[in-house]
Amino acid sequence: MSRRYIITTMEKYLITGFSGFVSRHFCEYLERNKVNAFIKGIDVHEHDLNFDDYKYLTFDFEKIDLLSGNDIEQVLCDFQPNFILHLASYSSVAFSWKAPIISFNNNTNIFLNILEAIRKLKLDTRILSIGSSEEYGNIREGNLPLREDTPLNPTSPYAVARVSQELLSKVYVKGYGLDIVLTRSFNHIGPVQKDIFVIASFAKQLMMIKKSNSSDGNLITGDVSIIRDFSDVRDVVIAYHLLLHSGKKGEIYNVCSGKGVSLREVISTMADILNIKIKIAIDETLIRPDENKKIIGCNEKLKRSLGWNPQYTLKQSLCDTLNYWDRIL
Amino acid sequence: MSRRYIITTMEKYLITGFSGFVSRHFCEYLERNKVNAFIKGIDVHEHDLNFDDYKYLTFDFEKIDLLSGNDIEQVLCDFQPNFILHLASYSSVAFSWKAPIISFNNNTNIFLNILEAIRKLKLDTRILSIGSSEEYGNIREGNLPLREDTPLNPTSPYAVARVSQELLSKVYVKGYGLDIVLTRSFNHIGPVQKDIFVIASFAKQLMMIKKSNSSDGNLITGDVSIIRDFSDVRDVVIAYHLLLHSGKKGEIYNVCSGKGVSLREVISTMADILNIKIKIAIDETLIRPDENKKIIGCNEKLKRSLGWNPQYTLKQSLCDTLNYWDRIL
Repeated sequence: MSRRYIITTMEKYLITGFSGFVSRHFCEYLERNKVNAFIKGIDVHEHDLNFDDYKYLTFDFEKIDLLSGNDIEQVLCDFQPNFILHLASYSSVAFSWKAPIISFNNNTNIFLNILEAIRKLKLDTRILSIGSSEEYGNIREGNLPLREDTPLNPTSPYAVARVSQELLSKVYVKGYGLDIVLTRSFNHIGPVQKDIFVIASFAKQLMMIKKSNSSDGNLITGDVSIIRDFSDVRDVVIAYHLLLHSGKKGEIYNVCSGKGVSLREVISTMADILNIKIKIAIDETLIRPDENKKIIGCNEKLKRSLGWNPQYTLKQSLCDTLNYWDRIL
Repeated sequence: MSRRYIITTMEKYLITGFSGFVSRHFCEYLERNKVNAFIKGIDVHEHDLNFDDYKYLTFDFEKIDLLSGNDIEQVLCDFQPNFILHLASYSSVAFSWKAPIISFNNNTNIFLNILEAIRKLKLDTRILSIGSSEEYGNIREGNLPLREDTPLNPTSPYAVARVSQELLSKVYVKGYGLDIVLTRSFNHIGPVQKDIFVIASFAKQLMMIKKSNSSDGNLITGDVSIIRDFSDVRDVVIAYHLLLHSGKKGEIYNVCSGKGVSLREVISTMADILNIKIKIAIDETLIRPDENKKIIGCNEKLKRSLGWNPQYTLKQSLCDTLNYWDRIL
């Protein structure tokens, strides 16, 4: 009985893509800040959170496929969330080249299913729609750092899906009055990230070299000269929390560090932290044609309008990422 | 045996949305110009062409749903077309507001299924991807006439789907080398158009008034002050034929008259042709919120690069449209 009362007064978050690493950090952020909240997680994959570890959060999890409009409508009807953190996405550019339709549908159609359910149920729910720096696509050097009003020129099926998601958001905000805030999120890194992502892959490989106690080792990689804008996932989830509470409806915000660093520098920093010597072995199959040499975003809008202020230095992020791999390897 | 020989030397056109009015005019254009061609029509709806009426064209028709990737792949594998005229679309803006997911999927997903089949089968097929002036969306007066490089600002689910189709086309041209030419087609009118479209609806109503022999009648309409850019469908199909043969891969072409005319002027011209007096009755439910007051395109690119030169005056188009309704009412 008391539980029922608590639920209705707590903020309710629906998190799609709940089993991913951003979701986990978002929950940890709420817990660390003693936010009493009810979290409903949904994902096609099982999660590996231990709900008993959390004192301030109450959890529920359901394994559903967002491609089923009926399933998501039922969840929304039952849960009536205040906020939706929409993290679910087939976010791999490489995969989108191999299976463009699956990639496209698992970005646009799942998003449309959520929007349609909200519209039909007339819910007063704020949605944070996560977009990607990939939307900027083919970038001219003169356009750096990328600002929210820089023209979009998407160059992969995944990037097109993200632009479509953004355009659909605008239509639903303007045409149906839905409450959607949008991001274009740049690369983020940190503990628990899977090694299909570049920095996690480096960290894992380097930690394995360290643990092998060999005097030096080979790190297998693609082009290490490319420059990217990395944020710590723990700063990213603060941005998402801020945007859910104080972002402006219909507005797009870059989520990025504003700084560019080459993959070579990242590798070198990690090797220094571990105090190991490594050789970089280029795997040609990992080099993507037409890849942007340099991607750097401008985060002034998010900083100025919402007071976001990233806390983690790149070195700290890399340290924590390496420690994570140290624990699990 | 001889038939097999003929088929392999004739140009082969796959027409999606074969049962619609643009397809019919495209076939009539080929026939009128004595083009020997093999036409494979596909549509979810039955067609009403009499194939025996055509001397130069050889037809085949299959009722398939382009949402089935397997079906379209089978058709493409069997037919191996030189050209695809991709007319199939849920092209109603109003419908897209009522059923956004159905509208979106029946534009983007059907298109992706075609592109994927072409890619998998490695066909050397040129595709004409039909887009819409709706892609320009919310238009500033200063941006008129709309040029191919005018920024897009789509404001309906349908318009977003068309922009997505365009962005996907670019990705498939650049990333997979597919041979796609694109249009942004403005309003087109002419005989056989269904009365769910505005000018056909006016023509039908006016012809009914004429036939009723009443001294005057009521024409039910939405906002008649809006200005649109109308082309005769018979000019449009010439543009499509030109683009299929001589358009530049990956390029977008406006297909439009370059002239703006208000719906009031259109109605007045038709009433004059019929020599009837009418009263305009505004149906508030037909007035769309946020509708652009004025849409006029620039057709210089199509004219200059491909020598397109529209033949039909607006008056002639309206005359022929009225004659069509005279015959069938």
